[in-house]
Amino acid sequence: MSRIAYVAGQYVMHRQAAVHIEDRGYQFADGVYEVIAVNRGHLVDEAPHLARLHRSLAELRIAAPMVDGALQIVIREVVRRNGVDTGIVYLQVTRGAAPREHAFPKAAKPTLVVTARRTRPPDPRLGEDGIAIITIPDIRWQRCDIKSVALIANVLGKQQAREKGAYEAWQVDRAGEITEGTSTNAWIVTADGTVVTRAADTAILNGVTRLAVFDIIRREGYRLEERPFTVAEAKAAREAFLTSTTADLLPVVRIDGAPVGEGRPGPLGQQLRAAYFAHAGAAA
Amino acid sequence: MSRIAYVAGQYVMHRQAAVHIEDRGYQFADGVYEVIAVNRGHLVDEAPHLARLHRSLAELRIAAPMVDGALQIVIREVVRRNGVDTGIVYLQVTRGAAPREHAFPKAAKPTLVVTARRTRPPDPRLGEDGIAIITIPDIRWQRCDIKSVALIANVLGKQQAREKGAYEAWQVDRAGEITEGTSTNAWIVTADGTVVTRAADTAILNGVTRLAVFDIIRREGYRLEERPFTVAEAKAAREAFLTSTTADLLPVVRIDGAPVGEGRPGPLGQQLRAAYFAHAGAAA
Repeated sequence: MSRIAYVAGQYVMHRQAAVHIEDRGYQFADGVYEVIAVNRGHLVDEAPHLARLHRSLAELRIAAPMVDGALQIVIREVVRRNGVDTGIVYLQVTRGAAPREHAFPKAAKPTLVVTARRTRPPDPRLGEDGIAIITIPDIRWQRCDIKSVALIANVLGKQQAREKGAYEAWQVDRAGEITEGTSTNAWIVTADGTVVTRAADTAILNGVTRLAVFDIIRREGYRLEERPFTVAEAKAAREAFLTSTTADLLPVVRIDGAPVGEGRPGPLGQQLRAAYFAHAGAAA
Repeated sequence: MSRIAYVAGQYVMHRQAAVHIEDRGYQFADGVYEVIAVNRGHLVDEAPHLARLHRSLAELRIAAPMVDGALQIVIREVVRRNGVDTGIVYLQVTRGAAPREHAFPKAAKPTLVVTARRTRPPDPRLGEDGIAIITIPDIRWQRCDIKSVALIANVLGKQQAREKGAYEAWQVDRAGEITEGTSTNAWIVTADGTVVTRAADTAILNGVTRLAVFDIIRREGYRLEERPFTVAEAKAAREAFLTSTTADLLPVVRIDGAPVGEGRPGPLGQQLRAAYFAHAGAAA
């Protein structure tokens, strides 16, 4: 089965799917994206993903490429044509192609690209054994609340993590406080069992999985604090974990080489993980 | 005459020139670029542009797409095929196409895109009358010394300038000091006739035109200080100007609506401008 992509109005062979060299996404990172999980044919949290797409577009003053009803049809058609039962959908919207000049072009039509791919569920050992993370300075721009494709700092951070045998890098701002991972949100559990994650300011992306976990925490009656935490507080935490659309919820058991708590996934994280899988309709 | 672009090994019609949707330049802003002026068939400061390209590539650990000798042949061929006597060459190198994942792909071949276009010389009135600039917070990432395509903050800044009737926006760091414009370097002349521009730290791009103006300043015996300056110091300066490959050197006569000096281009800036045109082999 050949992969199919949707590019600017057409369904095309994935390997031939292309955009113009003067697409502003290519020359200026002038675009935004979303990744939506597909679990057993179901689009997980589609509505909040589309809402966030609109927020990102509005912040950059890029017009929506089509109304949501049409976009939802395109997403489903790409999922169907690629035979994706469990996997991800990737959507990217840029300001479109125009002769290169920094300021907004007078007449450009936003470019919509939609792809889907089957993915194996994440290796279950990651959830059972936990993962290691490193901490690095946060050198990104100051509008990380916008899910833009200007991801070069995230790329460099993730690569650093990989080279140190870690799953992720948590980024640290000038105040010494953790903002988030390069593609995930960061969480800790304090000694008294309070779940802590940074409030959704302009330094982090307001993760859709993050919001789903908030719902679970409230429903289950756990204590939650939205506030920044330092690297030292994370290293001394009882538990730590991260969340994202593709990672779901993964326990963090080592930070910069030092064990978190007992160095094993903690009970509260594992309860939230199981509850998240139930929410997403996926197998834990 | 149809425009021709060089894309990943082939000369193609500009309007059909395309890159894959999974080119990392499109999905991650994982690439760098250069703009070189062509004046009467001559590539202005080609060597420092290529040196900076290599520096940017090395900082991101992207392999050079070809050796310099071959790259210079491609550049000249694109200039020739587009009949560019006076204009610009645009070069972009990305990490290449690969299935989407933040960390570096194991096997990706860098993508090289080269385009050229004829441009009219900048409106001479800009040099005679001077330009207005505004000041805005610098919200970019902390490695602006790398000429990456992660330009979304620059796009938003330039657009703000346009909407306020200004040519450029000078970006201001948390210390209240000006870093640079969204596509230009920033300069002032103090009351005692010293030319001041920020040192090439990680907050600014070390402009090739900036370096050419340094050479002129040294040769002509003017006083130069490489240090940061505040918005207040800029507003109180005797003169101000900006430099870039496409703007050359333009006098700044208004900052945030207030006149600089007499509100007219100052003599030192105009002398440097004339000397820069002589250097670039262009008509003033």
